[in-house]
Amino acid sequence: MLTPPMPRSDGRSADQLREIRFLPDIAPHATASMLVCFGNTQVICAATIQEEVPRWMKMQGVKGGWLTAEYSMLPYSTLDRKDRDSTRGKLDGRSIEIQRLIGRSLRAVVDLEKLGSRTLWIDCDVLQADGGTRTAAITGACAAVAVAINRLMEKGKITRQPLKKKVAAVSVGVVGGESLLDLCYEEDVKADVDSNIVMTEDGEFVEIQGSGEEATFTRAQLDDMMALGQKGIMELCAMQQAVIDAAMSPAGGEQIVKLADFFNKR
Amino acid sequence: MLTPPMPRSDGRSADQLREIRFLPDIAPHATASMLVCFGNTQVICAATIQEEVPRWMKMQGVKGGWLTAEYSMLPYSTLDRKDRDSTRGKLDGRSIEIQRLIGRSLRAVVDLEKLGSRTLWIDCDVLQADGGTRTAAITGACAAVAVAINRLMEKGKITRQPLKKKVAAVSVGVVGGESLLDLCYEEDVKADVDSNIVMTEDGEFVEIQGSGEEATFTRAQLDDMMALGQKGIMELCAMQQAVIDAAMSPAGGEQIVKLADFFNKR
Amino acid sequence: MLTPPMPRSDGRSADQLREIRFLPDIAPHATASMLVCFGNTQVICAATIQEEVPRWMKMQGVKGGWLTAEYSMLPYSTLDRKDRDSTRGKLDGRSIEIQRLIGRSLRAVVDLEKLGSRTLWIDCDVLQADGGTRTAAITGACAAVAVAINRLMEKGKITRQPLKKKVAAVSVGVVGGESLLDLCYEEDVKADVDSNIVMTEDGEFVEIQGSGEEATFTRAQLDDMMALGQKGIMELCAMQQAVIDAAMSPAGGEQIVKLADFFNKR
Amino acid sequence: MLTPPMPRSDGRSADQLREIRFLPDIAPHATASMLVCFGNTQVICAATIQEEVPRWMKMQGVKGGWLTAEYSMLPYSTLDRKDRDSTRGKLDGRSIEIQRLIGRSLRAVVDLEKLGSRTLWIDCDVLQADGGTRTAAITGACAAVAVAINRLMEKGKITRQPLKKKVAAVSVGVVGGESLLDLCYEEDVKADVDSNIVMTEDGEFVEIQGSGEEATFTRAQLDDMMALGQKGIMELCAMQQAVIDAAMSPAGGEQIVKLADFFNKR
Amino acid sequence: MLTPPMPRSDGRSADQLREIRFLPDIAPHATASMLVCFGNTQVICAATIQEEVPRWMKMQGVKGGWLTAEYSMLPYSTLDRKDRDSTRGKLDGRSIEIQRLIGRSLRAVVDLEKLGSRTLWIDCDVLQADGGTRTAAITGACAAVAVAINRLMEKGKITRQPLKKKVAAVSVGVVGGESLLDLCYEEDVKADVDSNIVMTEDGEFVEIQGSGEEATFTRAQLDDMMALGQKGIMELCAMQQAVIDAAMSPAGGEQIVKLADFFNKR
Amino acid sequence: MLTPPMPRSDGRSADQLREIRFLPDIAPHATASMLVCFGNTQVICAATIQEEVPRWMKMQGVKGGWLTAEYSMLPYSTLDRKDRDSTRGKLDGRSIEIQRLIGRSLRAVVDLEKLGSRTLWIDCDVLQADGGTRTAAITGACAAVAVAINRLMEKGKITRQPLKKKVAAVSVGVVGGESLLDLCYEEDVKADVDSNIVMTEDGEFVEIQGSGEEATFTRAQLDDMMALGQKGIMELCAMQQAVIDAAMSPAGGEQIVKLADFFNKR
Repeated sequence: MLTPPMPRSDGRSADQLREIRFLPDIAPHATASMLVCFGNTQVICAATIQEEVPRWMKMQGVKGGWLTAEYSMLPYSTLDRKDRDSTRGKLDGRSIEIQRLIGRSLRAVVDLEKLGSRTLWIDCDVLQADGGTRTAAITGACAAVAVAINRLMEKGKITRQPLKKKVAAVSVGVVGGESLLDLCYEEDVKADVDSNIVMTEDGEFVEIQGSGEEATFTRAQLDDMMALGQKGIMELCAMQQAVIDAAMSPAGGEQIVKLADFFNKR
Repeated sequence: MLTPPMPRSDGRSADQLREIRFLPDIAPHATASMLVCFGNTQVICAATIQEEVPRWMKMQGVKGGWLTAEYSMLPYSTLDRKDRDSTRGKLDGRSIEIQRLIGRSLRAVVDLEKLGSRTLWIDCDVLQADGGTRTAAITGACAAVAVAINRLMEKGKITRQPLKKKVAAVSVGVVGGESLLDLCYEEDVKADVDSNIVMTEDGEFVEIQGSGEEATFTRAQLDDMMALGQKGIMELCAMQQAVIDAAMSPAGGEQIVKLADFFNKR
Repeated sequence: MLTPPMPRSDGRSADQLREIRFLPDIAPHATASMLVCFGNTQVICAATIQEEVPRWMKMQGVKGGWLTAEYSMLPYSTLDRKDRDSTRGKLDGRSIEIQRLIGRSLRAVVDLEKLGSRTLWIDCDVLQADGGTRTAAITGACAAVAVAINRLMEKGKITRQPLKKKVAAVSVGVVGGESLLDLCYEEDVKADVDSNIVMTEDGEFVEIQGSGEEATFTRAQLDDMMALGQKGIMELCAMQQAVIDAAMSPAGGEQIVKLADFFNKR
Repeated sequence: MLTPPMPRSDGRSADQLREIRFLPDIAPHATASMLVCFGNTQVICAATIQEEVPRWMKMQGVKGGWLTAEYSMLPYSTLDRKDRDSTRGKLDGRSIEIQRLIGRSLRAVVDLEKLGSRTLWIDCDVLQADGGTRTAAITGACAAVAVAINRLMEKGKITRQPLKKKVAAVSVGVVGGESLLDLCYEEDVKADVDSNIVMTEDGEFVEIQGSGEEATFTRAQLDDMMALGQKGIMELCAMQQAVIDAAMSPAGGEQIVKLADFFNKR
Repeated sequence: MLTPPMPRSDGRSADQLREIRFLPDIAPHATASMLVCFGNTQVICAATIQEEVPRWMKMQGVKGGWLTAEYSMLPYSTLDRKDRDSTRGKLDGRSIEIQRLIGRSLRAVVDLEKLGSRTLWIDCDVLQADGGTRTAAITGACAAVAVAINRLMEKGKITRQPLKKKVAAVSVGVVGGESLLDLCYEEDVKADVDSNIVMTEDGEFVEIQGSGEEATFTRAQLDDMMALGQKGIMELCAMQQAVIDAAMSPAGGEQIVKLADFFNKR
Repeated sequence: MLTPPMPRSDGRSADQLREIRFLPDIAPHATASMLVCFGNTQVICAATIQEEVPRWMKMQGVKGGWLTAEYSMLPYSTLDRKDRDSTRGKLDGRSIEIQRLIGRSLRAVVDLEKLGSRTLWIDCDVLQADGGTRTAAITGACAAVAVAINRLMEKGKITRQPLKKKVAAVSVGVVGGESLLDLCYEEDVKADVDSNIVMTEDGEFVEIQGSGEEATFTRAQLDDMMALGQKGIMELCAMQQAVIDAAMSPAGGEQIVKLADFFNKR
């Protein structure tokens, strides 16, 4: 059962997503790419095909393809500049957790055998961070993967659709005792509980992560958060479909033009 | 609602924990330590006090103490020898995720300000891996932390109890359509869904992680898993209390003696 | 003396730049940012102020501020996906050379003492690589620096203009015996000689690098290349000024709107 | 010639070993393992078979097998917590020296050709450090190797015994002018000379290392130390044989039970 | 046009090289080696043949050989001791730039196909640094490469001369408004402009690098520097030829003897 | 008791050193330096003063100075080129062992308190390797240290001599059943036993390391090796004194001239 809608710092009701936008093909050398925005959170999601599989697959004789994800925050994505991973010589623990989550989430909906003997790289680079970068990344990455796969099928490289269904993700938290959908950064730092839900377009869970942020939470709060998350993800999946269709349609160019007022809204 | 009890490969019913054992003070130079066993899974959990706080706390002027965890699998803990992290030059992503989870779980129940200006290091080294090493680690680490804190209080170094309540963890999975408590490795590899639940002794969630293992799961399955997990954790918390009492009692030595047939059961 | 204009693979004459575009504030958390395009080469250039100076300056008691640059190719910027520096654990030699060049070029035109006791970070991330990424990076970085400094002056944080003059850069090469301005990737791989020229808006050299690409070149060819480069850089500096003015004008928003058809031209 | 027996801080005479104990199969997933104790020094020694040889052996076409050792101190093994090697990103120089010594010592008594085309990994992890960890490690590792090889022979994987003879090690030092056998940590820090002797059960040297600890020592002191060391090693080899027999006997379980009061003595 | 000769801190005229000396075969295990001195700058240059090509050449099926260079400053080469690269775990950016320059310069004059399927390693280790280490390194490396190739040809391993022409390098700078050839360290730190010229014995450019040292320079200054550089390089190439002849002549030993007063001049 | 002298591959008797030569001040920027040769083994040994102590000494408030050593093989020092440590990103285990040995050996004879609050860096770089590089390094390093300290005393920076006595080192091995002094590489690879002895000029041991090279050796062999080593070290110490005197004498230049036929003997 949902908590009653109440205005939030940005005027949203408790169960309302931020403005969601997709800009396809921001990185034209990728097989497909999306700049995805959850409000002020902006993530470049690129899907790139590499025509070989990892060494461990060859050595173990595993059939089919592979899908792997990398996540990084660009140094100017945060209010205080963030040092580059390459400067520090290694990824931080948080980035590693997130890229593993993105990879698992997409592998849950892609039939790797139908992908053929190739690797699908997913790269998620955060251009602007304002809470929910991992959920935006999963949602954008799925759209990019869908377009990339459609393009491979159009070229006849893949004959059976490997994408079983779409997947999207959203954060839900408890702030001041109230469950809120899709937290922005300001809400995120005040949250008592923070959870991330990854769900398919038909309402099945792919992954849930709920953390009391070094406090605890109740079963009733868990149930509330699950319901809010499901509502948000159903909306996200509809928007994903629209941008996938636009990117693939013969009139794709024109439709994308309408997305070009993209940067003006900031 | 629970699924009806059914025999498992090791004869347990669906809602039954493996044999749980604790051996206190296996590493005497630590402030407190526990060898904890969930069946054949064995983890050395050590709590060590360091009389200073991390550099970032000093620089930011944060009051109180800190608690951090490190997790590692000893190379001979797995059926095929696992390369050391130090040989590879870095931790693998899975270990980083687990040690971050252990740290968050314990910080959720320790009042860092009451800890005083010191660091509580938690080290979890897996001696034998048979599924559920992260949940055994959290459960054993909490017992070690409780004893370490009690010892600091006995010495008068801490005057107000920083441990708010005990925390334990257990895995729950869906195997062949049935929800099972505390998966061993053989069950884990067959599981369709795998979740880890961290919960306090009074039944509040600290953290939940549920993953469709690159597949998906339903809301009903989630509910089932939560109920099973809660049952297991209540049992674990009772056992934790017993070993904490034993380690702290004047007759601690003798009681521990009874635990010394520990290694014979294997 | 210039070689006579001849059509090139993309129809340009020998002394013609590719289409140059700037999109300001692509990364809003930076103090200033520019997406700069030299044809299909696209580089995100961000200038970020950090209100402290490097440790070595403090220890050596050096007055004033510092300016440093980092350069990276996003993995999807190349036709074949490029591994991340953080995955390989270190920057490659080429990236190190380029980021050192960017830093030197900007420090040549910024009065570090007038900057005050702060660091100006320049981050250049290549979104799409098609030849000339280092020259696009310098050209875009200078525009971003100019805007960032203007914004600091508007806020009264800096009182005397630290930017002495603008700087831009362009590549010039010898392809099939003919000197060509602003090589695209296809021309670059065929070039016998490849040079990069960094020059101020008043025609002084900041840096020249000419390499026979493992062959050799004559003095006459060097002279040709210098003349072509100077012509291109004068044009680039005029375009820089336009985008700096647009970004700083009260009607900046609107003018930038006109830049929003940016992504449609690809 | 031995110095006359004199009481030491723990009551031992100059030529007396600390209490030596072995607990077999502490790490059941290893082919064989021993927890070995020299007084309060406790080291987990595991011997694990890997059914392939290192890459350099394959490339050079070397016949037979390989044996290699790794040594590490668990972070809670010392009175002040020791940072993990994996956290620092590399082994310290002392650990590298010790693991090279362990490897050489065991290779001196194992016929690698009879081992067959496999690698014998020796892992030594210090659970509690109180002086002499490297000598305890060699002594425990040899016992583990003997049991591991016997088990391979029982399974028919090896047909000719590769273990030529047993090897053990002990430290000897000069403290306050007197030569002492098997130094504990308290004696070690006061020692003027510190040496480690590795010797076979028939009294041949495998390795000696004597260091004036940044001072010097005489030939007479060297002779004294060699004699003490030989006495200690002969005793250690007898104890090794007993635990190897126990671990391999049909009644092994029961005999090991008697070792289970192991942890009570601390 | 050259600036008029003026006395410098070491009494040289503006267009005068420092004393140039070569000591062949300082590192006898190399195929050929040279200790080259530009005044007090001393660099060990070794050319070593390895009878295989890099892995990437094999995988890409590239014919012929490879040539690569490594550059390092020995820790005692500078007035204040310089930390080793291996201690810091990586090369600094300056060393990487220099070794890439050395490699490109030599590859410009070596026909890799005639080299056959082998790698020619060039190692340049600075024994004493007093300005111009990179130009001394290129000049000495070319002499070492010439001797190494001649020795391979004498042994019949190579039948067609792969060295197309000799290459040398020199620095030129603008100090106090005057263009000076071959800067020593004292001049280098005062220079307004610093350039390095790599040129073949027949006066073709291989590489030029000119930097305003975070200031700017004019076209006239560039022309001046090119003329000075060419003069110096012609002189260096003549000296290279003399030492190559000496090293290869039957009386090589004796002629080299005359070079043995080498170390006395310091 | 020594074995009777017998001719060796290079004509030496069993108890005969190779030709020992020292060339002072090969690296003039060091406080003092020596190129030391044991036959074809050539090592650059530099002693450099740094006017501060390591951070750990400051933090622990330790008085006096510090002495530390670094050892490296130049890539062209071996018959097959050896990869640089900096390329591999870390020192190999053997180099770490050797540099720790060099440091301990010199600290045994230097009174760190008399050194004053400064660090004495010892750098040993192998120019040519033909067996015994570590013993040559210790022997040369002690001569360089003696000269460096004398120079500091002449300048009045140190008032009490910190060098208590000289130290030298030599290898001794058992080859074909016979004990041989100062093994060259060819003998080293055939040796059954290999030991290194570090001893002061008055015949006290600083360090001994004897290894059966993965075989074993007897007490009689140990005694033989100790006697041979002592003989060799006494000879080395006399030669050290001569070169120290030459380097310090007013006529030092001339005496060193006589050493300048150094490179002709190869």
